[in-house]
Amino acid sequence: MAARVDPDRSEWDVIVLGGAAAGENAAQYATQFSGLDAVLVEAELLGGECSYWACMPSKALLRPAEVLDGGRHVPGVSSLLTGRELDVRAVLARRDTVVNGLDDSSQIGWALGVGIDVVRGYGRLAGERAVAVRTAAGGTRVLTARHAVVIDTGSCTTVPTIPGMSEARPWTSRDVTNLHEVPRRVVVLGGGVVACEAATWLKPLGVEELSIVYRRAGLLARAEPFAGRMVADRLTAAGVRLLPGRSVTEVRRDDPRDTGVGLPHGGEVTVRLDDGSTLVADELVLATGRTPNTQDIGLSSVGCPDGGFLEVDDEQAVRAVDGHWLYAVGDVCGRALLTHMGKYQARIAGEVIAARATEGRPDGAGSGVPGSADGHRGNPQVTFTDPEVGSAGMTEREARAAGLDVATVEYDMAALAGTYVQREDYLGRAKLVFDRGTDTVVGATFVGSGVAELVHSATTAIVARVPLPVLWHVVPSYPTASEVWLRLLEAYRAEKRRVG
Amino acid sequence: MAARVDPDRSEWDVIVLGGAAAGENAAQYATQFSGLDAVLVEAELLGGECSYWACMPSKALLRPAEVLDGGRHVPGVSSLLTGRELDVRAVLARRDTVVNGLDDSSQIGWALGVGIDVVRGYGRLAGERAVAVRTAAGGTRVLTARHAVVIDTGSCTTVPTIPGMSEARPWTSRDVTNLHEVPRRVVVLGGGVVACEAATWLKPLGVEELSIVYRRAGLLARAEPFAGRMVADRLTAAGVRLLPGRSVTEVRRDDPRDTGVGLPHGGEVTVRLDDGSTLVADELVLATGRTPNTQDIGLSSVGCPDGGFLEVDDEQAVRAVDGHWLYAVGDVCGRALLTHMGKYQARIAGEVIAARATEGRPDGAGSGVPGSADGHRGNPQVTFTDPEVGSAGMTEREARAAGLDVATVEYDMAALAGTYVQREDYLGRAKLVFDRGTDTVVGATFVGSGVAELVHSATTAIVARVPLPVLWHVVPSYPTASEVWLRLLEAYRAEKRRVG
Repeated sequence: MAARVDPDRSEWDVIVLGGAAAGENAAQYATQFSGLDAVLVEAELLGGECSYWACMPSKALLRPAEVLDGGRHVPGVSSLLTGRELDVRAVLARRDTVVNGLDDSSQIGWALGVGIDVVRGYGRLAGERAVAVRTAAGGTRVLTARHAVVIDTGSCTTVPTIPGMSEARPWTSRDVTNLHEVPRRVVVLGGGVVACEAATWLKPLGVEELSIVYRRAGLLARAEPFAGRMVADRLTAAGVRLLPGRSVTEVRRDDPRDTGVGLPHGGEVTVRLDDGSTLVADELVLATGRTPNTQDIGLSSVGCPDGGFLEVDDEQAVRAVDGHWLYAVGDVCGRALLTHMGKYQARIAGEVIAARATEGRPDGAGSGVPGSADGHRGNPQVTFTDPEVGSAGMTEREARAAGLDVATVEYDMAALAGTYVQREDYLGRAKLVFDRGTDTVVGATFVGSGVAELVHSATTAIVARVPLPVLWHVVPSYPTASEVWLRLLEAYRAEKRRVG
Repeated sequence: MAARVDPDRSEWDVIVLGGAAAGENAAQYATQFSGLDAVLVEAELLGGECSYWACMPSKALLRPAEVLDGGRHVPGVSSLLTGRELDVRAVLARRDTVVNGLDDSSQIGWALGVGIDVVRGYGRLAGERAVAVRTAAGGTRVLTARHAVVIDTGSCTTVPTIPGMSEARPWTSRDVTNLHEVPRRVVVLGGGVVACEAATWLKPLGVEELSIVYRRAGLLARAEPFAGRMVADRLTAAGVRLLPGRSVTEVRRDDPRDTGVGLPHGGEVTVRLDDGSTLVADELVLATGRTPNTQDIGLSSVGCPDGGFLEVDDEQAVRAVDGHWLYAVGDVCGRALLTHMGKYQARIAGEVIAARATEGRPDGAGSGVPGSADGHRGNPQVTFTDPEVGSAGMTEREARAAGLDVATVEYDMAALAGTYVQREDYLGRAKLVFDRGTDTVVGATFVGSGVAELVHSATTAIVARVPLPVLWHVVPSYPTASEVWLRLLEAYRAEKRRVG
């Protein structure tokens, strides 16, 4: 869909550079009740990484395997599925539906519908409150903002500087979420969320030889250690080869080709590891972290160095730029590279911009959204592996590093009635991190099938700083997995009694 | 397993009359840190209704159908299940495993393991702090309590006084959860949780003709009205015949028999309705509410009328009896007939008894559990129908009846990314009830597949009275169903802006 914007128009109240999920939220929150107008500048698809190349297609690929695995472990259903494997063609077709065939017309329709304009093209800052947009036709259009510019240019897969790596045309997160043919042999490089989720969908889709190479001792190194261990155990049981503590020294590929997203990128890939061994695969998938898209967005025109993450204050204003006109939201801030946290930052930024433009300092009284990103302490995350890993707040390690007086408890989630009725061989574990100083929960981790929705209770308790004596009255419904809260509180009480 | 209690012993600190889930909790909380001792008096199975005849077997029967239905609606899996039906024998075998073959030895083992004694037999109050137990051998043993007696005798299916009803030997909740053969034709009487859940598992288990007869206009009459409508729509689509606004005037049965729990109770049943029509079935299932088991437990020996619910104070002490020695927990209180609320009451009672006996007035400082049942305002409940219905706090109707300054918002849960990736045809709806006076959420209802764990976030927000400006910072993880929180808050804000 063409964006119906007057081609001669050059001024808006707010310019959002990058129209991904966070940018859309920033524009919406800046304009919806303020009378301000806004424009989204986007060179690719409106909706961004999350909608087309990350969260959504990955969930579409993971869901069928999860459902099939669930069925295989429930008596009464399991016998119906004996010897049956996923219908790969149907799974990929569903993924294509979920990404809307990489067509962003519905997102454009949403933006125009709520009064937000869209300009297609690659934008760069061009001095204070100005953005120069290079359009598809090759021309350049300079837009100026009356009040604010918001940067939401996101991030891309980090390509490690390893001999032969770039030339080998590795798959990135975009390829592995948008794969069109299932490679027979895959090497995944990295041990974080992207690596673990990709392995979780690639194996049941039919990858025969799948290895994960990662430098650390464990998977999901930012989570509580038991989470990575449980995911590693299940991946190993599924036939995935884990190579912890290893790094790649060289990559070689026969006939590398630039064939497009999710297609074979050439012939056989040989990956040499630091112990001298080699792995041979049909595709090498990079899950080696994210690099913010800030190298070529004109930051030097406003006195900022190009590249790197943008440091922001609690109103999401870029610290290095004076005058409260430049904001950054989403991955470029480097705070928490998660769609929902980017959108949260965007709501904050949008509110602040609207308040500054229309009523002076924001105080939240009008909007209900106080202009300070306090919710970052909640920092929820769900990794859709088998088992799922859900967390909120701090890990024990983070809480200790923050100098808190830490106490922790753990509980085997398989010992709950609510998980036992799900499946006899349920695998799960939960942990709470308490700050003894304030008698509150500051961190929670839940590992197990179906824990995704359990996270929000922890985020609520952590962000609202609900005191422990009140949490005792928050009764979990029986039989649900939420009953783990009661067990954890009981364990904590027993522990407190024990240590006196 | 035989309870290893000295047959001549007659005195304990605490006697719990009825060893169901709540009674077990009361004994545990009264004794675990106090040095007190306790005995559970139980004539049937330790663990009670929930473990053997309600929550657990019903969930075991519901889970396979839920998993099968999920698989049928996910591309990549659905084609593997074409034309396949549940393996009923395997489902019933799993149910038998979940109820441990109606053997309570593991529960007895738990009790003895934590130092709680068990006396088998039918107990009745026999004056202050005394319980007379009629044993299997036919003798009577009088036990006395140094500190407290706790009543947890539970409830049973209410048998309506309708001509021919008792004689027809209808199935109760015990029969329908412990069915051994699937009847071809079933009439369910009642429109609440038991009726709706039973219909949800009976139909996929192969009941061909299934009717639900209920007096009210809608199913699940205590929930928000849309919940019952959505469940009714799905039941109807599954081929269940709904007969709202009807009552039964007469029941007749050929050759009624007392064959045991879950077996055929005789020949054909004819049910006459108040409009003169008749239904013919193989079994009639009563889901007509619960009657507390208080008619024959010796209440008159302590000056209480026999029968009816026992009114308790916020420490779970029975109001009609002086001296703070008689407590009641679970269904007999008539507060919220739910296992988890009974257990919550039991934790309160246990703490209070321990504190009174050992340290004077309870204040919660030692235990972490304040001695007052404030958590009742959370009152969570999950009904495992299709779609699931989860709720916490008050419905709009209840909040208005309580005189609050009510505002409400609703949101279509199918419009969330987190539910769309679950299945394309997701059916769901959410509603929050706000008290404008305190700017807090006082009620929440979530309808949809997988909402069970979402309830605990609402219970947390309601019990902890988290103010709305703080809730805005409780970020839901993307893509999960929990994102409905954000949508509901946005809807509420838009509504507030609209009405000024």
